[in-house]
Order: sequence, then structure tokens, then C-alpha cells
Amino acid sequence: MSEQQGNSEHETHALFQQRWSPRGFDSDKKVLKQDLLRCLEAARWAPSCFGDEPWRFVVCQREESEQHWQNLLSCLMPKNQSWAKYAPVLILTCTHAVFKHNGNENRWAEYDAGAASVSLSLQAADLGLVTHQMGGFDIDAVRKIFAIPNDYMPMAVMALGYQGSGANLDESFQGIEQTERKRRAIKEISFFDGWKESE
Amino acid sequence: MSEQQGNSEHETHALFQQRWSPRGFDSDKKVLKQDLLRCLEAARWAPSCFGDEPWRFVVCQREESEQHWQNLLSCLMPKNQSWAKYAPVLILTCTHAVFKHNGNENRWAEYDAGAASVSLSLQAADLGLVTHQMGGFDIDAVRKIFAIPNDYMPMAVMALGYQGSGANLDESFQGIEQTERKRRAIKEISFFDGWKESE
Repeated sequence: MSEQQGNSEHETHALFQQRWSPRGFDSDKKVLKQDLLRCLEAARWAPSCFGDEPWRFVVCQREESEQHWQNLLSCLMPKNQSWAKYAPVLILTCTHAVFKHNGNENRWAEYDAGAASVSLSLQAADLGLVTHQMGGFDIDAVRKIFAIPNDYMPMAVMALGYQGSGANLDESFQGIEQTERKRRAIKEISFFDGWKESE
Repeated sequence: MSEQQGNSEHETHALFQQRWSPRGFDSDKKVLKQDLLRCLEAARWAPSCFGDEPWRFVVCQREESEQHWQNLLSCLMPKNQSWAKYAPVLILTCTHAVFKHNGNENRWAEYDAGAASVSLSLQAADLGLVTHQMGGFDIDAVRKIFAIPNDYMPMAVMALGYQGSGANLDESFQGIEQTERKRRAIKEISFFDGWKESE
């Protein structure tokens, strides 16, 4: 696991530096169900508007149910399949687009589901696992194959497993895997003195 | 800070149990700017689609710029103002609704910003701070007062500070503050064997 902090400006809890999104997975190393449950437990405790908890995870384990896992893999864009096929666990994250208590549109469904998903990833990092979320998948295919109800929205597919050497990656990904992680400067994302456009 | 785990089913990193959203803030205890920066640093390292980092934070510190702080407080729904007025820091989170690299709509802007915001909250918890996000605010007022560009969307206002006794809360909130934290069961949010509607 990379402990590389890229262009960090301030000290944070180690979890935030440990979490990152490689493409190189160890295809042979299984993930224990108990560890998966601990990741989901972390997601479960994310905050949400009106306590709606508008996140749902369809968990596909290659070792336990290869058909499910293949089904989700098949929905990914080919470029994503080329590396995600080495991840032993694929997780589909869906949001509940309406509030349970009144059926109205939930403007924060995606915001809250994103909080739950990164909590899952941070807990995974604490267990020595890596995660990589993808937006590139076929929504209609996912809806059909997994029978997702209309009031839920497929948002992301997460690959989860142990980090591999990256030797199994397409050449085009080899370089990216070695690149130093970077982020915008703090002053570009936080304004202490009124809005400042930096782009 | 509450270490109360409510109806947890599996062990997680302590951060996920430490983070919670009280309404009782200690009005007298200032938040150091260095600690605020560490919280923003954690947010900064959230994952995002195409590495767009579609989150922006307008930070309003009562001690440093009371006018800014008052401006943001004034945009909250009255019920939220009644407790958030004791929080020394208020943070407006906005999403960038379009991708920087091509100007197209970013379907994951809110999802990614939610990940950044909960990272901020988890780092705050690690520093002994508490946070509480609110969706109940006047978007148009916020847009006008803080001159938010049209391609950004105000999503939430976060109160941040040290936890107080709750004695300053309206009576209607006193009970909630004592309620045990609870979440849906893991099996209601995660499906290992195909989608299962539980509601």
C-alpha cells in the first residue's frame, strides 16, 4: 500500500494517505467476508440527510458467486474491464433517489452515498485492502441484469481487493500506476475570505 | 465525544464510531486554523471521477470574520440557526457541476463532494471536533450573498466546533441529543445475493 502523500500541505490521519485507487489488483488473494462486512459497517455509519441512509451496495464476490461477479464485470466499459477483471470483489453502489419518509426527491442522495462509499474505502485501507471506483459502466445493463428498481440509481462500481504488482496491467496503465498522487492546492478548494475562482 | 456505537454489527476503525452529528456546540471554544486546515486536507484527498475534485468549501470563522459567519448563519432555516449559532465555524460545501476538462455535466459531482465532506468530518473527529451538516438552507440567498458562480451548486452547510453540553439547545432538540445512534441493518443496505427490497 502506498504511503505516498503526493503534494500534501497539512498532516492528516494516516487513513487518508493510505487510501488510494490503484488498478493493479492481486488476482489470487481472496478477501475475507468478515473484512467485507467491516467495510460495509463503516459505510453504514456515514451521515445522511434526515437519516435516510440512501445507499445500497450489491456485492459480487468472484469466489462465492462467479456468475454475479461476471455479470457486474460485463457491465463495465472495456477499458475498465481490462484491469477490474483481476479484482476479486466488485461492488455496485446505488442511491435511493427519493426519501423514504415522504417519497419526495432526495437532493442529497448522491452526496450521502458518496460519503458512505468513501467510508467503505477508508475502512478497506485500514484492513490493507485497496479500492478503485469507476463511473464507466453501462447503467441500463446494470439495471436490467441486477433488477434495480426505478427509484434507485446506479452510481459507481468499486473494485476491491489486495494490491498487486501491476504486472498484469495493459501497457497504457503501467505509467499511471507509478505517477505521484496529486491534488489541487488547498487554497483552490477552500475559501476563507469569500469565493475565489481559480480556474 | 460519543464513543457510542449504537447498533453496530461489525468492528470498524474507531474514527467511524467517533464521528457523529450533535447539535450541542461549545460556543466559547475556538477552533484553531491549523486544525481546520487539517480537516480540509483530508477532504482534499477524497477520490473523484477523472480526478476533477469537484468540491469547494467556503469557510466562515466567527472569530476571524464575524460578518462572513453571520452571513452564512442567516441563510440557514430558523430551526437550524437555533443551534448552529453556537458553532464557531460554518462551512458551505459547493459542487462543481461540470467537468473542468470538457465542460460536460459531471454526474458524480455530488457523490464525490459527499466523499470529501465526510473525510473532513472524520478528520475533525480525530482532532476531537464535531461536525453536523445541514441541507436546510436558502440556496438562492447563499448564491447571492457569497456570489457563487452558476456552474457551482451549494449542497450543504456544516457546523464545526467542539461539542458542548447541549444545555443551550431548544427543548425540542434536547431529547434527540440523548437518543442512541442507530442505522439500518447491514442486510438492508448490502446485497450479496442479488437485489433485495427491504422497505
